[in-house]
Amino acid sequence: MISEVLIVPMRMKLSYRVLLRRKVLFFETILGSTNPILLSDCVLAGFSRKLVYRGWSWGRKGLSMEGDGAKGLACQKTLDGKASNGNKAVPSCCLKAMSCLPEEDAKCHSTVVSGWFSEHSRSGKKGEAVYFNNPMWPGEAHSLKVEKVLFKDKSDYQEVLVFESATYGKVLVLDGIVQLTEKDEFAYQEMIAHLPLCSTPSPKNVISLTLKVLSLWLPFVMIEAQCAYLFSVRVLVVGGGDGGVLREISRHSSVEVIDICEIDKMVIDVSKKFFPELAVGFEDPRVQLHIGDAVEFLRKSPAGKYDAIIVDSSDPVGPALALVEKPFFETLARALKPGGVLCNMAESMWLHTHLIEDMISICRQTFKNVQYAWSSVPTYPSGVIGFVLCSTEGPDVDFKNPINPIEKLDGAMTYIREMKFYNSDMHRAAFALPTFLRREVASLLASSS
Amino acid sequence: MISEVLIVPMRMKLSYRVLLRRKVLFFETILGSTNPILLSDCVLAGFSRKLVYRGWSWGRKGLSMEGDGAKGLACQKTLDGKASNGNKAVPSCCLKAMSCLPEEDAKCHSTVVSGWFSEHSRSGKKGEAVYFNNPMWPGEAHSLKVEKVLFKDKSDYQEVLVFESATYGKVLVLDGIVQLTEKDEFAYQEMIAHLPLCSTPSPKNVISLTLKVLSLWLPFVMIEAQCAYLFSVRVLVVGGGDGGVLREISRHSSVEVIDICEIDKMVIDVSKKFFPELAVGFEDPRVQLHIGDAVEFLRKSPAGKYDAIIVDSSDPVGPALALVEKPFFETLARALKPGGVLCNMAESMWLHTHLIEDMISICRQTFKNVQYAWSSVPTYPSGVIGFVLCSTEGPDVDFKNPINPIEKLDGAMTYIREMKFYNSDMHRAAFALPTFLRREVASLLASSS
Repeated sequence: MISEVLIVPMRMKLSYRVLLRRKVLFFETILGSTNPILLSDCVLAGFSRKLVYRGWSWGRKGLSMEGDGAKGLACQKTLDGKASNGNKAVPSCCLKAMSCLPEEDAKCHSTVVSGWFSEHSRSGKKGEAVYFNNPMWPGEAHSLKVEKVLFKDKSDYQEVLVFESATYGKVLVLDGIVQLTEKDEFAYQEMIAHLPLCSTPSPKNVISLTLKVLSLWLPFVMIEAQCAYLFSVRVLVVGGGDGGVLREISRHSSVEVIDICEIDKMVIDVSKKFFPELAVGFEDPRVQLHIGDAVEFLRKSPAGKYDAIIVDSSDPVGPALALVEKPFFETLARALKPGGVLCNMAESMWLHTHLIEDMISICRQTFKNVQYAWSSVPTYPSGVIGFVLCSTEGPDVDFKNPINPIEKLDGAMTYIREMKFYNSDMHRAAFALPTFLRREVASLLASSS
Repeated sequence: MISEVLIVPMRMKLSYRVLLRRKVLFFETILGSTNPILLSDCVLAGFSRKLVYRGWSWGRKGLSMEGDGAKGLACQKTLDGKASNGNKAVPSCCLKAMSCLPEEDAKCHSTVVSGWFSEHSRSGKKGEAVYFNNPMWPGEAHSLKVEKVLFKDKSDYQEVLVFESATYGKVLVLDGIVQLTEKDEFAYQEMIAHLPLCSTPSPKNVISLTLKVLSLWLPFVMIEAQCAYLFSVRVLVVGGGDGGVLREISRHSSVEVIDICEIDKMVIDVSKKFFPELAVGFEDPRVQLHIGDAVEFLRKSPAGKYDAIIVDSSDPVGPALALVEKPFFETLARALKPGGVLCNMAESMWLHTHLIEDMISICRQTFKNVQYAWSSVPTYPSGVIGFVLCSTEGPDVDFKNPINPIEKLDGAMTYIREMKFYNSDMHRAAFALPTFLRREVASLLASSS
């Protein structure tokens, strides 16, 4: 009755892997080894202090945990089941994340076997299968039943897996982390695209000037001229190789150019083959595809080129290592026009509030206005995903109230395919924060509009 | 490193078990057997038509599936992995739910063993362990690592299990379904209590009349008298034996009496022992505990007794079999004052839109105003839970805009313990519906305010 089941680690797209790989490089250096090393082993072996002394950025509060205000909501405070002592301990969610090396991830495909399990624990006795979850979310797992594995390969950057699930349609997994499922992809794609784009005026709609002039040669004749000046609106997508974000941006007819910079061509190819409803986004003539490193791409871009940038990075590697640090946000800000907007995927409010604080804090140093929004996406960890929205110095942007409501854009709701999740009510609602999160980030957002 | 792990079936509190047990009774009748029978077996054996002909209520649309508009969002259309034919097929989510007999549930405790698994499939070959999820949500599972089983017993109504999880604190499981975890219980408890209570005026605040009368014996002296008439505000909780909803209702000082009718005393006892932060709700002197069947209790109640009723039923059994059908809602409506409000737990928008439609449709036949709201709760299926809010004929109730904002109630935010989730922004946001759900229920809610 049941054929194959994959325990898929829940999704976390951005920051952890960056930190992880940086740590790995670091340890490769200090240990003089080219083999991948489990960071947890290193920490247990007494290297953790060096991490601190070398000043690796584990967040605004360094390596400290959240205060009592977030009791019960903080990152897991255990390391392999044992409580850590003192405030300077590495949250085990991060610590365990660090132990999730790419080489470890590569074994994830072996998880698609009969039964519900992911990978074998080293601590299991010989012959005894002990199963555990992705270390990013210790103590829990979300499992999807696999009907059929459709694609499995390793690109230059990551392991790419596509399988047909029993109840969520086709699923894209990168390095063992679910990126999207056909059943709920639209919630993420629509929100990450329209939250920023509906927060900025649509030039075709608003820069429509009606000039009424009294004729010089016929004094009593009023000449009415309409001057609709079109800005060349440009949007950049960082990552987003599945095409889903492109599909959503395409609904905005005011957008003239959609640049996308995706580092991994295999993701695009796989999407075109297995996820045509997402890859359709690439077919829009306004899309200009750039295969390569987004940081490099942005450095070469003229300052003030983009009206909006959407960071949908699936798994930053190589030059993208810096994707969650201040220099990257400065690069993004530079590439934006005055009043331009950024939307960046930003964690789960239930699992990693301190990382949300960090990201908001970093963005506040660079941007004029920073806000946080969230949405329901069942196949992401804890069932939610967050977004940090920023705007540069320039015209004020009120993210919470869409100035450019999607319902008023001609044909936008049905372009390519009907919208399924986002609407102006959902836009406004996305900025309502639960009290526990509000307490953590209120002071950071206080001076934002 | 990993000790014990429980694959816990995700939570569904209300309707399915009712349907399930009714079906079981039905089959017991037609087959003349007293043994529990797996409905899926019956269907496979050719009994499914009889279900249809006998007119068992599978919803507003009978046994039909959702239309194309909900493509990809409908209930699973497969039965044991095979697509069903025609529009009259039973959605497999329901079909599989029906196969989840109480007797099957009773085996759930055996799922707490080393490794990630729940129970053994009968279809597995001898000696081959094939693991599967709770049939309520075919094709997926949410698993929690079990640190220690704290309590395990069977009451007159259900299996009660409490375990210490690795990362979600203590967990209460009834009949194999997670009811709450210490980490995220507040999201559910706060929303189900304050959505209705903040939608009705707080009498202590609004019925404060200032009378200014010219004195008869001293014509130039104005006598000012303040008359604060206090209603005797009564709230009823159906179910809610853990006490969490009581804790939240207690924040409202205008409430004079909090009746609670819980059928299973063991749930209360277990909560008092293992979940003191929830059971503290029972300590409020306004709470009047009634152990028994809520339907019976309501029948004996005078008409128009309650200002608000909150249905937090964990697992309706026995007389509560009718808890999701029209007569029960009529009983609730009768027990409410004019303009009184009802809040009823109502499924996940991601998994069972047709059941949400059904519930709204049924409520519309009895109540003047019906609205739907939802909230994020990570340990519930798909990470969300919904609420149907209804008000009786009488003063208009605008559920979407809290007339009685919690922030303005003296001490409410910190009473007993600080609020963690609900606030007036979250209240308003809860009524914003994703486009796919709005399409399904818009016509049903259209005539509601």
